[in-house]
Amino acid sequence: MTTLLIVNGTVIGSAGPYAADVLVEGEKIAALFAPGRGPADVETIDATGKYVIPGAVDAHTHMELPFGGTFASDTFDTGTRAAAFGGTTTIVDFAVQRTGEVVQDGLAAWHGKAEGNCHVDYAFHMILGGVDDDSLKAMDQLVADEGITSFKLFMAYPGVFYSDDGQILRAMQRARDNGAVIMMHAENGIAIDVLVQQALARGETDPIHHGITRPQALEAEATSRAIRLAEVARDCPLYIVHLSASQALEEVAAARDAGRNVFAETCPQYLYLTLEDQLGAPGFEGAKWVCSTPLRSKHEPHRADLWKGLRSNDLAVVSTDHCPFCFKDQKELGRGDFSKIPNGIGGVEHRVDLVYQGVVDKQLSLARWVETIATTPARMFGLYPRKGVIAPGSDADIVLYDPAGTTRIGVDTHHMNMDHSAWEGYEIAGRVHTVLSRGTVVVDGDGNYHGRKGHGQYLRRGLSDYLL
Amino acid sequence: MTTLLIVNGTVIGSAGPYAADVLVEGEKIAALFAPGRGPADVETIDATGKYVIPGAVDAHTHMELPFGGTFASDTFDTGTRAAAFGGTTTIVDFAVQRTGEVVQDGLAAWHGKAEGNCHVDYAFHMILGGVDDDSLKAMDQLVADEGITSFKLFMAYPGVFYSDDGQILRAMQRARDNGAVIMMHAENGIAIDVLVQQALARGETDPIHHGITRPQALEAEATSRAIRLAEVARDCPLYIVHLSASQALEEVAAARDAGRNVFAETCPQYLYLTLEDQLGAPGFEGAKWVCSTPLRSKHEPHRADLWKGLRSNDLAVVSTDHCPFCFKDQKELGRGDFSKIPNGIGGVEHRVDLVYQGVVDKQLSLARWVETIATTPARMFGLYPRKGVIAPGSDADIVLYDPAGTTRIGVDTHHMNMDHSAWEGYEIAGRVHTVLSRGTVVVDGDGNYHGRKGHGQYLRRGLSDYLL
Amino acid sequence: MTTLLIVNGTVIGSAGPYAADVLVEGEKIAALFAPGRGPADVETIDATGKYVIPGAVDAHTHMELPFGGTFASDTFDTGTRAAAFGGTTTIVDFAVQRTGEVVQDGLAAWHGKAEGNCHVDYAFHMILGGVDDDSLKAMDQLVADEGITSFKLFMAYPGVFYSDDGQILRAMQRARDNGAVIMMHAENGIAIDVLVQQALARGETDPIHHGITRPQALEAEATSRAIRLAEVARDCPLYIVHLSASQALEEVAAARDAGRNVFAETCPQYLYLTLEDQLGAPGFEGAKWVCSTPLRSKHEPHRADLWKGLRSNDLAVVSTDHCPFCFKDQKELGRGDFSKIPNGIGGVEHRVDLVYQGVVDKQLSLARWVETIATTPARMFGLYPRKGVIAPGSDADIVLYDPAGTTRIGVDTHHMNMDHSAWEGYEIAGRVHTVLSRGTVVVDGDGNYHGRKGHGQYLRRGLSDYLL
Amino acid sequence: MTTLLIVNGTVIGSAGPYAADVLVEGEKIAALFAPGRGPADVETIDATGKYVIPGAVDAHTHMELPFGGTFASDTFDTGTRAAAFGGTTTIVDFAVQRTGEVVQDGLAAWHGKAEGNCHVDYAFHMILGGVDDDSLKAMDQLVADEGITSFKLFMAYPGVFYSDDGQILRAMQRARDNGAVIMMHAENGIAIDVLVQQALARGETDPIHHGITRPQALEAEATSRAIRLAEVARDCPLYIVHLSASQALEEVAAARDAGRNVFAETCPQYLYLTLEDQLGAPGFEGAKWVCSTPLRSKHEPHRADLWKGLRSNDLAVVSTDHCPFCFKDQKELGRGDFSKIPNGIGGVEHRVDLVYQGVVDKQLSLARWVETIATTPARMFGLYPRKGVIAPGSDADIVLYDPAGTTRIGVDTHHMNMDHSAWEGYEIAGRVHTVLSRGTVVVDGDGNYHGRKGHGQYLRRGLSDYLL
Ligand SMILES: [Zn+2]
Ligand SMILES: [Zn+2]
Ligand SMILES: [Zn+2]
Ligand SMILES: [Zn+2]
Ligand SMILES: [Zn+2]
Ligand SMILES: [Zn+2]
Ligand SMILES: [Zn+2]
Ligand SMILES: [Zn+2]
Repeated sequence: MTTLLIVNGTVIGSAGPYAADVLVEGEKIAALFAPGRGPADVETIDATGKYVIPGAVDAHTHMELPFGGTFASDTFDTGTRAAAFGGTTTIVDFAVQRTGEVVQDGLAAWHGKAEGNCHVDYAFHMILGGVDDDSLKAMDQLVADEGITSFKLFMAYPGVFYSDDGQILRAMQRARDNGAVIMMHAENGIAIDVLVQQALARGETDPIHHGITRPQALEAEATSRAIRLAEVARDCPLYIVHLSASQALEEVAAARDAGRNVFAETCPQYLYLTLEDQLGAPGFEGAKWVCSTPLRSKHEPHRADLWKGLRSNDLAVVSTDHCPFCFKDQKELGRGDFSKIPNGIGGVEHRVDLVYQGVVDKQLSLARWVETIATTPARMFGLYPRKGVIAPGSDADIVLYDPAGTTRIGVDTHHMNMDHSAWEGYEIAGRVHTVLSRGTVVVDGDGNYHGRKGHGQYLRRGLSDYLL
Repeated sequence: MTTLLIVNGTVIGSAGPYAADVLVEGEKIAALFAPGRGPADVETIDATGKYVIPGAVDAHTHMELPFGGTFASDTFDTGTRAAAFGGTTTIVDFAVQRTGEVVQDGLAAWHGKAEGNCHVDYAFHMILGGVDDDSLKAMDQLVADEGITSFKLFMAYPGVFYSDDGQILRAMQRARDNGAVIMMHAENGIAIDVLVQQALARGETDPIHHGITRPQALEAEATSRAIRLAEVARDCPLYIVHLSASQALEEVAAARDAGRNVFAETCPQYLYLTLEDQLGAPGFEGAKWVCSTPLRSKHEPHRADLWKGLRSNDLAVVSTDHCPFCFKDQKELGRGDFSKIPNGIGGVEHRVDLVYQGVVDKQLSLARWVETIATTPARMFGLYPRKGVIAPGSDADIVLYDPAGTTRIGVDTHHMNMDHSAWEGYEIAGRVHTVLSRGTVVVDGDGNYHGRKGHGQYLRRGLSDYLL
Repeated sequence: MTTLLIVNGTVIGSAGPYAADVLVEGEKIAALFAPGRGPADVETIDATGKYVIPGAVDAHTHMELPFGGTFASDTFDTGTRAAAFGGTTTIVDFAVQRTGEVVQDGLAAWHGKAEGNCHVDYAFHMILGGVDDDSLKAMDQLVADEGITSFKLFMAYPGVFYSDDGQILRAMQRARDNGAVIMMHAENGIAIDVLVQQALARGETDPIHHGITRPQALEAEATSRAIRLAEVARDCPLYIVHLSASQALEEVAAARDAGRNVFAETCPQYLYLTLEDQLGAPGFEGAKWVCSTPLRSKHEPHRADLWKGLRSNDLAVVSTDHCPFCFKDQKELGRGDFSKIPNGIGGVEHRVDLVYQGVVDKQLSLARWVETIATTPARMFGLYPRKGVIAPGSDADIVLYDPAGTTRIGVDTHHMNMDHSAWEGYEIAGRVHTVLSRGTVVVDGDGNYHGRKGHGQYLRRGLSDYLL
Repeated sequence: MTTLLIVNGTVIGSAGPYAADVLVEGEKIAALFAPGRGPADVETIDATGKYVIPGAVDAHTHMELPFGGTFASDTFDTGTRAAAFGGTTTIVDFAVQRTGEVVQDGLAAWHGKAEGNCHVDYAFHMILGGVDDDSLKAMDQLVADEGITSFKLFMAYPGVFYSDDGQILRAMQRARDNGAVIMMHAENGIAIDVLVQQALARGETDPIHHGITRPQALEAEATSRAIRLAEVARDCPLYIVHLSASQALEEVAAARDAGRNVFAETCPQYLYLTLEDQLGAPGFEGAKWVCSTPLRSKHEPHRADLWKGLRSNDLAVVSTDHCPFCFKDQKELGRGDFSKIPNGIGGVEHRVDLVYQGVVDKQLSLARWVETIATTPARMFGLYPRKGVIAPGSDADIVLYDPAGTTRIGVDTHHMNMDHSAWEGYEIAGRVHTVLSRGTVVVDGDGNYHGRKGHGQYLRRGLSDYLL
């Protein structure tokens, strides 16, 4: 059994930083000591000058997701290995029920993909592609027996994942009763499809039109609608995924001011990248940044507002929505028709760094950095106190983060299975130094990898700890 | 040196509860252990079935405050002893500069009252009764040298504590530069005084008219004004004290949605007591509940909104505004003229219990209970990580709270120097069990007192850790 | 040719009341004179003590509407005669295209019903039951050639009139280009149908459940959604019909504060009647008040807010949504299943009176009374200056209203083809005294009827005069 | 007695334009006729192609105002003559009570200045420079006996016109009882004075610092405070003068959405001119545009928002705040110290044109043009129906406005007593063609002046007709 003492570091908790030494025994954190008070006779890791933070929890990934005739390019193997490199030691991926399928079959398929292949621990949300009596019953069963306590619905993608407002309402009512959280892709896909068809009919086929045909008003509208439907479902807990527009944030903030159980996440891409500079890159280059919700205009205050939302907790979580597609053969499917470009950006490896850059840029405190990438997703999705905190008894998922280090992001150095990087050339004023997953050092301070496929375990989740 | 292990308890942190054993060595927390992993050979306190929480921090007390020709009836001796009984191990009292006085003289006077008399640790905010060039310079000196990093101004009480908007602006500008927080008593006292004179002229002299002449609109107005002035002072951090009205809360929430460094506290009296039932009690009885801001109408949603604000963190802190006056000879000064009733309610002993009752009533989570009474005030006012958290290296200010216990509040049992209780007959479904102050058990599980006058030390505070 | 001078009355214009004599020549108003300055040698009507107002314009009626297997019980003959008795000299009825029908065929059918049968002038809006390429083209043709410049869509009634958000968006885009106004029945019918089925499954079959299953949140949601869709359609003019909930009004008000071309009407039933007192009447009695949007709870501030909205012009128009069904054989279709009750209340005869009562009750000024029932609907729907004002050159549609009179409403006295009255027993402190339609006295001061079927003419409407 | 028929014109009323011929007999409008229906044997004015509008009402002028050691440069003679040239046939000037003066003495002084000197009709508001028992009594007397029904207070200019919040509250309470309207200069002058002193101390003495030291937040704050105080005064009618900032407009809009009797005016300078381009003109040139509230930044949406407010009626009135000072000897008093520059812009001659330009620019409808410059000020301040409308019985104050004309504004052509123009070089796509004051043609279509000093009469005003 491992026994390790991490000494001389600064632990970052929800209340802020404090100096403490962390004792790891086996897979767990055994104790926290005032500096120097720990046992003398054990192996140590020197964390001088480092932040000691809980392994990050990425609550939104799509490994091997089938989409538009292809598959997300990271398997659970490659994707979770990249996650480990980036300081993320838990992912919550989305198992998928498609319309007409049995929910449990979809779940079984995802277990099949993940089992034995993961480098870090993993859990599942369930996408409900078709709400009917059977899938409502399945919700109860997944909550009770399978450790799946969150269900994602789509107001976009008619004919694929789309649920109508009646289906959404029924799922919300059921969640209200069984304690689950409803996660929502909040874009008015019915209206968007009209705009998309009109754009294509006008010959507007370049990647930027993916963004132009998904205007902020249709994200804000769907966000508002989801909040009202949750109100009708007697305040069913609601979690808006990948929020990108200021106006959608305003809807969330107003619901929260009214005391509602409404939460939202954003993603690093919305904090840094823009409609014009990335999605509007010359030629077909912008395809790399086709994701939904889309990148927003740099001429509007979206990015500043999202940072503000993270500070004030109107945005509770930063996830990646990791959904990588290679440029060659995958993104290229949409040459001449932006609507055929597979939607998604790969970033599971970079979230800890990209949000830390916000600390450097005075956008966020250290405590909020850790909350938004680790503690809150763990609490939100029923993984606390096993994950998301540095506390005795918790899993020894620990990251030493070096504020004196530097990280250059690019396709030459990343570990994701992608032939390009959405963040090519970005340089972060900090570095993931050492990563422990359940007591094992999987990445050491020199960047050597000691993890292995199959180390990662499936996590049965409880109900959310985060409700008002 | 004490060595003590608190075993079998449930620690409540900002992220929620977890099981841990807490090792106290001397005046500090030396370590937290996963249950059972602590040293075997030390004295233990059994916390089975108890919550282990940081000693509470009351950021708003007025011991021995001179007011209306009399003095608040608790000395630092009696008041801090009562605080200890109630699980509060730190108070931040208000030193007072009156108009024309030298700020440092006021501070020295308060040190004189407190030094050697306190049972628990104490710090000071500084009330500026007159903002001028000298007191602005004094602000810098208090921040730099005296550990005083928050300054309170009054928009009420013309001729006593009142500052005009120009003075407020100047103090805010200075605070913006030296890092201090401006605390604001936000009521439009100029307009209130007109209403008071008009009421008295109509023969409306009963205590309830204290409340009627301080309508919510004049609290909301002042709150809004303070927020705008802080904006002009380049977003000076602003902390609204004793917020009681829904409409004032809306102003705070809107500022926070806009990303502003605006914070607010409420007090237990506003969460439970009302204009009609208490302040409007028959005869002169209502005088017991004369405080400013006043109790609000039960026919309006103030109380529910305040609980909502505590959940959403638009209200960050619960303080007591402990300012006790005896009924006899003190409150009675205002018979026949409500404006002569000394303003204040005593409650330093009951805050931990009264907010815990909100947990029982499903108004608040355990984590928010601890944040609002201990962690956030400590962070807000520069006492973190020494106070406000259960963490290695922090002061061993620890409370064992028994959710199976019961607390009956009343003048026969309380320890404050008051001849009545504002909370007479209230029964709480929980009990302060054991209290440690800097490693010393001052109250044991049987309610015996082991503390002593002079144990409490003055705390030099740093700048706020809580800014966005 | 008639020549008539209405003398001694007080004309009510948009800017307020003024004394003037009104000269009618033929079908038109020939002149307005300062009192006593008119020609001496003509027939006069003495309007001493009366208000002289433009004949009212009811912008929302449904004569002979097929609904739920039956027909609204007023024909254009009986309905427009009742309108005349009530001081309404123009109606704008809804011609209907059902899904799959040719728009122009629907219009022709409505012309067939109305032509030669109307007692007062009439125009048509067009209901689009199915938005597709053909009906979009038809919109242009109706605007250009048929004098139909407003189109109504439904977010409720799936399978009957319902349009999805893509259809709505396309119709709005077209309206934006051809200058028409989109009228919206704003209720989320998809979600409502779920609530209806659930209620029926629980055995909740009484009329009140019609209201309970259409909660305010689903009206507010749809209102908000329509506003956002109109924003995407480059600020297409939008007119919300039969607004009944405070929360929907808030959405309209916010859009208007933002400078948007968003308008709304309410109906008398929402200003006076309630969920509990009418829709919740014992037994099946409540069926009389089944209409959509439903009557709202008296425990919430809806009615006061609607009056407020009329004062501030956030509500621009009062229409009746006249859609009468007899209790016997019609409303009774829904015994045992509230969802089978034909939706509608008859009131075309009472609007002038019911809104005037608001003047008596100090809810509304005289000017706003006339604006909301006559001037604004005429301007909104392209009938100004022919209708809606007392001005030289306008049609001599004139009502003398007697503020000293009294109107008792009830089935025994009304002229609508209904076997009951939604307003039975209501007494109004005012009375429609004399009514002129295009220069003809159709109702005289003694209540005698001089009108005739076929007098009413079809009005080709222009574009709205009311856009910001 | 004049008898004149204005033929072939288009009358603009509150409900929109209509064709009518207007008969003037003596000082009054005797009749309106459908085109061609008027008497054949009278003198005519041909208004072909012209708009026939009511003479404009300027509700905010300061003739001969003493300010900062000098006097506004227009006398009632020169100022009202210039007004007539510009189509303004009524002014409401501000009589002044200074602190310590008897209100009625101030009024008498203003009557002394105006009587026998005015070219067009005039009325007075009363500025209360000191609210005390005597001036409160005087308010009642002026309402009852003097035809003065509006009282202006200042939240700015401490030591000159400033009232504190208690004085404001008392005046509002009195107005609530006697029916008057409170007009408010809403800027936080106490805070502004601090900023001014700090700027001067830093050597920031140029005119632009006049604007920088009066930030929008201090206008919005005061606006909000005035609204709250009016709420405490049981919804006393409140009229905010010279609103210039978007954020102040938001406060007004919110109050109006809540159904409050809150109104606001803006001025042409805020619709067109900016902090940078005018107030920030090189050298001391900016002094020409020193006025309070100040011109706002062109980098913020103030101007667009003000036009929006005029469309939606959140801004009810456009006045000029005409307060002219010559550059030489007057504006120059503030060389080297912007706080010494007399505050004011002269524009009484240009308002009709400048707001008409908004019609040309599609900012405003013809109906709103006439409402904001004539009808609403007349209704707001108790002059309706004598002034502000083209209606039989009203005063024959009539303007023929030529949309085919052009107006070049500049010091060489204007008639105000100023040695410069704030609008030098502005060109308007329209022209005041003919102006009648009480039946007399004072300006003919060739620009010849036929008016005379002393023609203008004092107007006793009634209570406001405009309250909700
Ligand atoms: Zn996703
Ligand atoms: Zn206070
Ligand atoms: Zn908020
Ligand atoms: Zn206090
Ligand atoms: Zn409808
Ligand atoms: Zn509004
Ligand atoms: Zn209808
Ligand atoms: Zn002025």
